[in-house]
Amino acid sequence: MPEHTAASRLRLSGLCFFLQVLNILLFAVFVRYSPESSPGQCPPQLNCSQRNQDSGFQQPRFQDVHIQVLLSFGLLVAFLSRYGPGSAVISILIIAFAIQWAVLIQGFFYFFLNGKIYVGAQSMVSADFCTTAVLISTGAVLGRANPVQMLLLALLEVTLCTLNEYILLSLMGVSDSGRSLTVHTFGAYFGLMVSRVLYQPHKDKRKREKRQDMGHQTDVFAVIGTIYLWIFWPSFTSATTVHDNANNWAVLNTYFSLVASTVATFILSPVLYEESTPRMVQIQDATLAGMAVMGMAGEMLVTPFGALIAGFLVGLISPLGFRFFTPVLHSRLKIQDTCGVHNIHGLPGILGALLGTLLTLMATADTYGDRLELVFPLVAQGSRTVTDQVLIQLGALPLTLLLATLGGWLTGSVLKTKVLRCSPDAQYEENTVFSEVAEEGCDPRASEKELGISTVV
Amino acid sequence: MPEHTAASRLRLSGLCFFLQVLNILLFAVFVRYSPESSPGQCPPQLNCSQRNQDSGFQQPRFQDVHIQVLLSFGLLVAFLSRYGPGSAVISILIIAFAIQWAVLIQGFFYFFLNGKIYVGAQSMVSADFCTTAVLISTGAVLGRANPVQMLLLALLEVTLCTLNEYILLSLMGVSDSGRSLTVHTFGAYFGLMVSRVLYQPHKDKRKREKRQDMGHQTDVFAVIGTIYLWIFWPSFTSATTVHDNANNWAVLNTYFSLVASTVATFILSPVLYEESTPRMVQIQDATLAGMAVMGMAGEMLVTPFGALIAGFLVGLISPLGFRFFTPVLHSRLKIQDTCGVHNIHGLPGILGALLGTLLTLMATADTYGDRLELVFPLVAQGSRTVTDQVLIQLGALPLTLLLATLGGWLTGSVLKTKVLRCSPDAQYEENTVFSEVAEEGCDPRASEKELGISTVV
Amino acid sequence: MPEHTAASRLRLSGLCFFLQVLNILLFAVFVRYSPESSPGQCPPQLNCSQRNQDSGFQQPRFQDVHIQVLLSFGLLVAFLSRYGPGSAVISILIIAFAIQWAVLIQGFFYFFLNGKIYVGAQSMVSADFCTTAVLISTGAVLGRANPVQMLLLALLEVTLCTLNEYILLSLMGVSDSGRSLTVHTFGAYFGLMVSRVLYQPHKDKRKREKRQDMGHQTDVFAVIGTIYLWIFWPSFTSATTVHDNANNWAVLNTYFSLVASTVATFILSPVLYEESTPRMVQIQDATLAGMAVMGMAGEMLVTPFGALIAGFLVGLISPLGFRFFTPVLHSRLKIQDTCGVHNIHGLPGILGALLGTLLTLMATADTYGDRLELVFPLVAQGSRTVTDQVLIQLGALPLTLLLATLGGWLTGSVLKTKVLRCSPDAQYEENTVFSEVAEEGCDPRASEKELGISTVV
Repeated sequence: MPEHTAASRLRLSGLCFFLQVLNILLFAVFVRYSPESSPGQCPPQLNCSQRNQDSGFQQPRFQDVHIQVLLSFGLLVAFLSRYGPGSAVISILIIAFAIQWAVLIQGFFYFFLNGKIYVGAQSMVSADFCTTAVLISTGAVLGRANPVQMLLLALLEVTLCTLNEYILLSLMGVSDSGRSLTVHTFGAYFGLMVSRVLYQPHKDKRKREKRQDMGHQTDVFAVIGTIYLWIFWPSFTSATTVHDNANNWAVLNTYFSLVASTVATFILSPVLYEESTPRMVQIQDATLAGMAVMGMAGEMLVTPFGALIAGFLVGLISPLGFRFFTPVLHSRLKIQDTCGVHNIHGLPGILGALLGTLLTLMATADTYGDRLELVFPLVAQGSRTVTDQVLIQLGALPLTLLLATLGGWLTGSVLKTKVLRCSPDAQYEENTVFSEVAEEGCDPRASEKELGISTVV
Repeated sequence: MPEHTAASRLRLSGLCFFLQVLNILLFAVFVRYSPESSPGQCPPQLNCSQRNQDSGFQQPRFQDVHIQVLLSFGLLVAFLSRYGPGSAVISILIIAFAIQWAVLIQGFFYFFLNGKIYVGAQSMVSADFCTTAVLISTGAVLGRANPVQMLLLALLEVTLCTLNEYILLSLMGVSDSGRSLTVHTFGAYFGLMVSRVLYQPHKDKRKREKRQDMGHQTDVFAVIGTIYLWIFWPSFTSATTVHDNANNWAVLNTYFSLVASTVATFILSPVLYEESTPRMVQIQDATLAGMAVMGMAGEMLVTPFGALIAGFLVGLISPLGFRFFTPVLHSRLKIQDTCGVHNIHGLPGILGALLGTLLTLMATADTYGDRLELVFPLVAQGSRTVTDQVLIQLGALPLTLLLATLGGWLTGSVLKTKVLRCSPDAQYEENTVFSEVAEEGCDPRASEKELGISTVV
Repeated sequence: MPEHTAASRLRLSGLCFFLQVLNILLFAVFVRYSPESSPGQCPPQLNCSQRNQDSGFQQPRFQDVHIQVLLSFGLLVAFLSRYGPGSAVISILIIAFAIQWAVLIQGFFYFFLNGKIYVGAQSMVSADFCTTAVLISTGAVLGRANPVQMLLLALLEVTLCTLNEYILLSLMGVSDSGRSLTVHTFGAYFGLMVSRVLYQPHKDKRKREKRQDMGHQTDVFAVIGTIYLWIFWPSFTSATTVHDNANNWAVLNTYFSLVASTVATFILSPVLYEESTPRMVQIQDATLAGMAVMGMAGEMLVTPFGALIAGFLVGLISPLGFRFFTPVLHSRLKIQDTCGVHNIHGLPGILGALLGTLLTLMATADTYGDRLELVFPLVAQGSRTVTDQVLIQLGALPLTLLLATLGGWLTGSVLKTKVLRCSPDAQYEENTVFSEVAEEGCDPRASEKELGISTVV
């Protein structure tokens, strides 16, 4: 059906055109450079007061954030490595759109003053975080959503993710600097819910046989992705912490957590699978999980051995989830999780939030010193007790899960409407670039287990 | 012809030996460490006075440049990814030689004092910029020049590029911090002119059939190259701007420009080619083009939506150029443009220069504030009116084009001399490493159009 | 023998579990966060006094180190690229374990105070350095040691390497900021000695025929590895120098050395091998060698042309070593050097140490200025004459060689015990991941020469 294909090609083209022109118009009306030199940079509704109070150090501080924007972006794009060169094309499109859209939406929530959004380095960091959540959700539906659906998913998720973040960080005063909740947990469960709504039982059974010869390619990307993560993620985790001692803790904790979770993979993999060493893509998963668990707790008093234990446990839980939980997810709950985001981001994010809540109990001036002002400003100022803070941190978890699943259900329902529904299979039959999406980058064994297929000819 | 091959092998070896010994001797006579601690670091003929006047901030400033040297180098090497592992060998040779040579030549122009060249971080940044221009030119003649010719091209282009840069930046006082003119435009048209002079009509028709199986390899490199560009280019664009607010603008503008040009690729690609999504290498091209257009204008008052519009337009123009202009270039003007540098660097560079000229019109103290002193020091000091600055910025474009084409013609003529002319085809028939050069890394579709060949067996 | 295989799989799993739990327990007992804010950060037995005396600059200093930890880690992982995706799995395991172990062991030597180890950014830098030495040793025995042996090698080498470093840097006051001796020389000769002890004459003859189709893959990794090295190594070399002018020298010297050694590869390669251009993996070797030679001398008064000469010579010596010395090493001394670490790290490390000793002769207040205090604090304080310093620098070389070979012999003997000896060949016959280890990432020509095999069917 070449007419059909041409029509669908032009639909993506047209949607991109429409969205880009919309972005340009909205930017023209609303977005201005942030006047950093003036003291009114930070709008009063954002609790960034403690971050700028050291005005003498503002200059290096900005430069610090600026480098971290660039570096943390490396992380974002490292997700691509996971999904292979075919899917990278789609991911780049999502990133390019989501960053613009996130600057706008986050601007309305955080940087809106006198009818204008003032963008600066901080906006770019926030936009990067938000785009990460979208990329995580994408991993759950990869291969079962066409590019048009992906773009609309990004459009809706950026909005809902920002809403969740605004409620948690600004209204409730939750401390979640490395975004265990607002990025990892939200992104994973949002994506899983979308995957549930888009579920089509008799799909994806064909083109599995092509996968075998992709194995080596996948390993190359997994090596590169793991390298990026080891280099850049500690920056990512600490991007929004102030560059004081707290920053230091966040980097050290993340570092210790990831080495422990990597070793844990070597312990479980020979037991679960009949291979002596894990595949590279499993190590990348362990790296991601070990870092996701340090999201909220990173800047808190984890202590070095606490970080080792947390990383070790999450490094054991993640492969167990791939082996035992993903098949159950698929067969019982009808949720296909293409890249296993539930094991890599969902579970570690929840564990990270619980760990962070636990560590909030210890947030006293004795243990934290000056750091208390930075990690829990409301507690340090005396306007909130430690118990209140613990309850709020704890309450943020079910709230995030609720918003993520509701948002995912809503988004999935929109994506399922007839005009968008034509699946990638029917539509891009001969398009090898897109059909590679489902084949590469995701752990082959996990997907096979998940789909209950070993070799289909 | 094994004797012939042995002779040509040894010729490259001998030339490398000669050039390296020459470099060592010239370094021994002329080059010394820059005494940064002393106030006489910056020679008076270089207009770097405004950059060191904040002597209290000199320490972090240096460190800033130092990091940016390393990072911006990532960019240089990212070009390699574009040309595949075979050509990477040649490119690394060019880089290794051109950096040394650029330190010398640029040293004579900028850092020469009392018979000595004083090198420091600034020299390395300048040498990196100059090497980038050489790499861009290389992209136009890749596969049609042998390594010996490439080395001589680097030797001559570094000299001429530095001359052009010296005339523009130091004598005329043009503001071109991200090097739209001196790197992108100069490099592209220099390379195109060399390609014109080296034109041989009946070459390159054979070995096209090998290309198909390289497609996947190319994509891997394109993904990695795009990631590098997204991470490192904003640093590159702002490497020579002062690390004040202007720096911030340059980063934000470049960032917005690149996301818009990426989306634009998704709009045009389905229309121009019968595929639903662009190939990774096209996205890399769009990324490069979107950044080249922000070269001169980056630190000026583009405004966020202006950067989006500029990136959007250049993201549309670049694929159109590949589709319609490159074949014309080849058939009418007899210019083979192996990697399409005209579309990626030439046109965006010119557009960037025009945009920068336009924005110079708005360079008043009201709109720029303190920034005016940094971007247009002569205007801020009152020694030049805004109109003069606009005329000078405008005049720099034809001057650069003139110098680039003259220099390219001269260089091409030298490379065409009989002793050097033996083409890579005759010479390296059985050398797979070199014959891969023409096959990989460049957009296969564009090249096919360009050469008018679809399948040659 | 599936039972045998299952047993060996579980042995690796069990060892990982034991070591990780041991690390967690030791961390729980000993390791605490370093209280950077307090002045007592630096234990008196470590000569870091001069690094913290500029207390006003402590804040940016820390941030500097922190970025360099992340960057220099890129270097560590770049070694992986050399050994291919199969071996990357083993290398990541070694890294993940060695970092934890090095934090502990180095902590006992350097950061031990009142029964606790205080970890901070400095600990991570030291641990990274130590892990580098382990990775270098690994390169000598790759493919002939199973993962269990590799882990034990890391366990022992971290301890011995830290002992050597402590004797040299803290007790003797040797200046070796870029670690020519303590990382490159120690790692290479330790690994070579282990390789000697593990020597088994009739192994490794089979599976050579698979290598040919890996060539392209190897090139991809070599390109990526070389890019990483060019970007990150200058940081690595200068990671422990103070971020004053000395830092600048170290970066410039390393930069000049690497470009010269790269050009040298192009001179010798056509002469030694019958190809017009070197392979990418040879360029990576030259890059490594050119940087290893700047380890000790980097922050000294090499002068730009001195750095060019040093890089040029080592760039000539390294391929000559591959061509002529590695076969002798194998046939006469029965040392198999899988990845040629003797040519890449051993010889350049020794040359770097000799160069550093030579340059120490010129260490007077006239030539070094304020820098003398930073590079040779004991000389600057007058408690040691220049001649004494020269003798100590010179004496450090044989001492390191002695400790490395003794340590390697000891470690090899432990690894050879019967319970560990089952070679990877017998054990992992059908495990493609591991059997790839010996095939990839290392210079195919060198290995062929070394093993005296061209094609074995």
